[in-house]
Amino acid sequence: MKKIEHIGIAVKDLAAANEIYAKLLQTESYKTGKVKSEGVETSFFKVGESKIELLAATSGDSPIAKFLEKRGEGVHHIAYEVDDIKAEMKRLKEEGFELISKRPKKGADNKLVAFLHPKSAAGVLVELCEEIRDEEQSLPIGDEVWEDL
Amino acid sequence: MKKIEHIGIAVKDLAAANEIYAKLLQTESYKTGKVKSEGVETSFFKVGESKIELLAATSGDSPIAKFLEKRGEGVHHIAYEVDDIKAEMKRLKEEGFELISKRPKKGADNKLVAFLHPKSAAGVLVELCEEIRDEEQSLPIGDEVWEDL
Repeated sequence: MKKIEHIGIAVKDLAAANEIYAKLLQTESYKTGKVKSEGVETSFFKVGESKIELLAATSGDSPIAKFLEKRGEGVHHIAYEVDDIKAEMKRLKEEGFELISKRPKKGADNKLVAFLHPKSAAGVLVELCEEIRDEEQSLPIGDEVWEDL
Repeated sequence: MKKIEHIGIAVKDLAAANEIYAKLLQTESYKTGKVKSEGVETSFFKVGESKIELLAATSGDSPIAKFLEKRGEGVHHIAYEVDDIKAEMKRLKEEGFELISKRPKKGADNKLVAFLHPKSAAGVLVELCEEIRDEEQSLPIGDEVWEDL
């Protein structure tokens, strides 16, 4: 793992949380977006080499809505940057980690992403992120569609 | 906030979590320690400019034991590095954040630390960390005593 790419935080009210995090981190959100297929809207803040990603639900059956119902607001996942997501998925599977994603999907921020089950990593949902660099990788993967707000 | 200094993860079994995180991050824990007054033992891993801090309870009434009982394993806090913890505490108080700590305490890793209440920051317990640089600051502050395992 090269670095903590971002920490995902589930929030009830994105506008209110945006205000709080702008004050806390003394920087404005630099990007917002929606993932229709996941029923989620997001807002990103930079801090050092990492980011804080606020996540709010846009539909009642989104994973974030379910998380909020069960656990309330708080950290939803930790994302680590990797060089080669497929190699890393293979390595972690062989090490005994349970992968939620069978193959990488295109996620936010021009990234290929995959998730490890929280029970594999001391209760923490772990995301792997590889930056998309070439044309082949930038083709849509999976069914996620991102659009700017 | 200069960077994410570390992410604190509450775990039930420190030895088991150490093994998991060594595999996940492909690096060994570089430091372990105990905080007697908090009933906690810790293990640190480096990832990029940040750290993962695993936290296990050493007594039934420790804050980590209570957290595990209530929420299970998972992210306990996010710590941000600051240049001047006193100035930052004053600024955040004026911005309406609720401080748990009235004054900085000496924490792990040669740091002065202070905490913001989770209800101030979208359900996330926030720690501020300032590296102790001069002699005056390295005097014991508060009642925390750290020792190597």
